[in-house]
Amino acid sequence: MPEAAIYVALVHGPVKNKRGERVTTAVTGLNVHDIARAVTTYGGRGYFLVTPLAAQQELVRRMVAHWEGSFGTHYNPNRKDALGVAEVVNSLDDTIAAVAGREGGAAPRVVVTSAREVAGVAPVTFSDLRGRIADGGAPLLLVFGTGWGLVEETIGGADLLLEPIHGHGGYNHLSVRSAVSIVLDRLLGERGERGPE
Amino acid sequence: MPEAAIYVALVHGPVKNKRGERVTTAVTGLNVHDIARAVTTYGGRGYFLVTPLAAQQELVRRMVAHWEGSFGTHYNPNRKDALGVAEVVNSLDDTIAAVAGREGGAAPRVVVTSAREVAGVAPVTFSDLRGRIADGGAPLLLVFGTGWGLVEETIGGADLLLEPIHGHGGYNHLSVRSAVSIVLDRLLGERGERGPE
Repeated sequence: MPEAAIYVALVHGPVKNKRGERVTTAVTGLNVHDIARAVTTYGGRGYFLVTPLAAQQELVRRMVAHWEGSFGTHYNPNRKDALGVAEVVNSLDDTIAAVAGREGGAAPRVVVTSAREVAGVAPVTFSDLRGRIADGGAPLLLVFGTGWGLVEETIGGADLLLEPIHGHGGYNHLSVRSAVSIVLDRLLGERGERGPE
Repeated sequence: MPEAAIYVALVHGPVKNKRGERVTTAVTGLNVHDIARAVTTYGGRGYFLVTPLAAQQELVRRMVAHWEGSFGTHYNPNRKDALGVAEVVNSLDDTIAAVAGREGGAAPRVVVTSAREVAGVAPVTFSDLRGRIADGGAPLLLVFGTGWGLVEETIGGADLLLEPIHGHGGYNHLSVRSAVSIVLDRLLGERGERGPE
């Protein structure tokens, strides 16, 4: 059985700010680039930037078109290839519909992430989710929040909550770019022990 | 025996550009922030930004001072803590000397990284290096290149070359920020299987 298809969503709104209020954050260029490159490296089928703001949607479309066009082709074809996975959507519901549309109607299982434990929600472990992906089945949508993280209703409405990344002992200080990269590596990275030849 | 101390160096010069020429790249703000946060999360003892350019050195010092000062303390204490591991140095030799100075004179083993295999150099695997770190001994300096990667003399002069990150099948398109995060996670990340309670 083939492994499950993987999609990544980066939510800019609604998310929390540092006071826990609902906000929409600005899209930053490196979140488009770094995460598109990571999704491409790990064989993801799509990367959705979620923002309800029309001006921000237009900004992302222009950024992708710039790299997809003659500039990217000339300057760095690898980066052009990576940007091809990125697209912008209005909401997480639209993301789910877009994934289902591409996967022959199969709605994705929605897996939310958090830098910390969430009270009252038992998380799925990395190794458990890695096993489920390898077993195949419904496509998987991995959801990350910008700002100070996803709002409660997004976490509560998901199918699964992924356990937080624990680095080495204490607190998780990672940027969302680092967190996405590490999650993809833990779930999909090649683990073969290919020693020196 | 305690595990080996870990340091990270990000080299801006000399590195290669896309035509393989020796260049010095500009320091970018997110390379300071994201990598400092990753090093802190994974328990690294120091993060060295290597550039021979005095104006770039001054820029990094101002950036770190900004976050270490009253702005960072007020805005985001976690980010302030992370930036405390970052410092700027002139060369890789100066980095090695700085690590030895902090580690009671013990020179670090220098481990270079590359996005691709290097002809004629047998790499150490992630799991082998993870085991060596756990076994303790000399401090380890993990060296990453900006631009199109480290120059041959840096790779040739190192004690070890770490195997490339293989994502899922093909080519490695990762940003250096993603690569550092994934390498630290593979070498130092907690691997305990803590299931849902």
